[in-house]
Amino acid sequence: MLSRMAKPANNMKTLAKAQPEVRFRMRIQQAGTIALGPGKVSLLEAVREHGSISAAARSLNMSYRRAWLLMDELNRSLKSPATVSEHGGQSGGGSVLTPVGEEIVRLYRDIEKEAAAACAAQITALTRLVKR
Amino acid sequence: MLSRMAKPANNMKTLAKAQPEVRFRMRIQQAGTIALGPGKVSLLEAVREHGSISAAARSLNMSYRRAWLLMDELNRSLKSPATVSEHGGQSGGGSVLTPVGEEIVRLYRDIEKEAAAACAAQITALTRLVKR
Repeated sequence: MLSRMAKPANNMKTLAKAQPEVRFRMRIQQAGTIALGPGKVSLLEAVREHGSISAAARSLNMSYRRAWLLMDELNRSLKSPATVSEHGGQSGGGSVLTPVGEEIVRLYRDIEKEAAAACAAQITALTRLVKR
Repeated sequence: MLSRMAKPANNMKTLAKAQPEVRFRMRIQQAGTIALGPGKVSLLEAVREHGSISAAARSLNMSYRRAWLLMDELNRSLKSPATVSEHGGQSGGGSVLTPVGEEIVRLYRDIEKEAAAACAAQITALTRLVKR
């Protein structure tokens, strides 16, 4: 298959792409429901970037209803909410992250990075067992 | 609410149970499919414990078909298989872990432990934000 490709540069790109991708996911479960996980953290980041739940939902190809429910579930599971609505309504108004919301994003992404760094040797050993 | 409970020993137990549970999950993705993740690792452990895919499936409340497909998918994604069937057939015969299968379980569980240990401070900070 490689011999059918035109340029060596393209071959390199194809080989690089074939590397197994390792994803670390952490979930915090409380009373049977997932209080915090990768979906809610991505949504928080999208709210921070886009300024509203509706725009955040669109950017993630998620329905507004689903995004609103996830944020509501997250805020209810926290001692203090991660987002505040700027106009109070369920539709139209903007939303921003509270300091708690910012802290959650920071800690969560930090955990992913530190976990991957701490386990680099074992992750390499494991990915070496997988076919390219 | 605590004052309504009868025994201090029970209170302690209730408080311990109410702690948010943190789960670390790592997935290795290759060419769009999950080559290795928590489901496949649990299944490997069950095969090791129960000696066959059918008994492993039962122990996990999983259909035999689903367990067989997961093991087949895992073995195809590896350079060398994680399990071998002792009688060659799809049903009835026993299955055992190969040294590669044993290594996968060991590395995967080690990664979970080391990741949690390396991120203990951030995990504590994050769980403190969650309601008990």
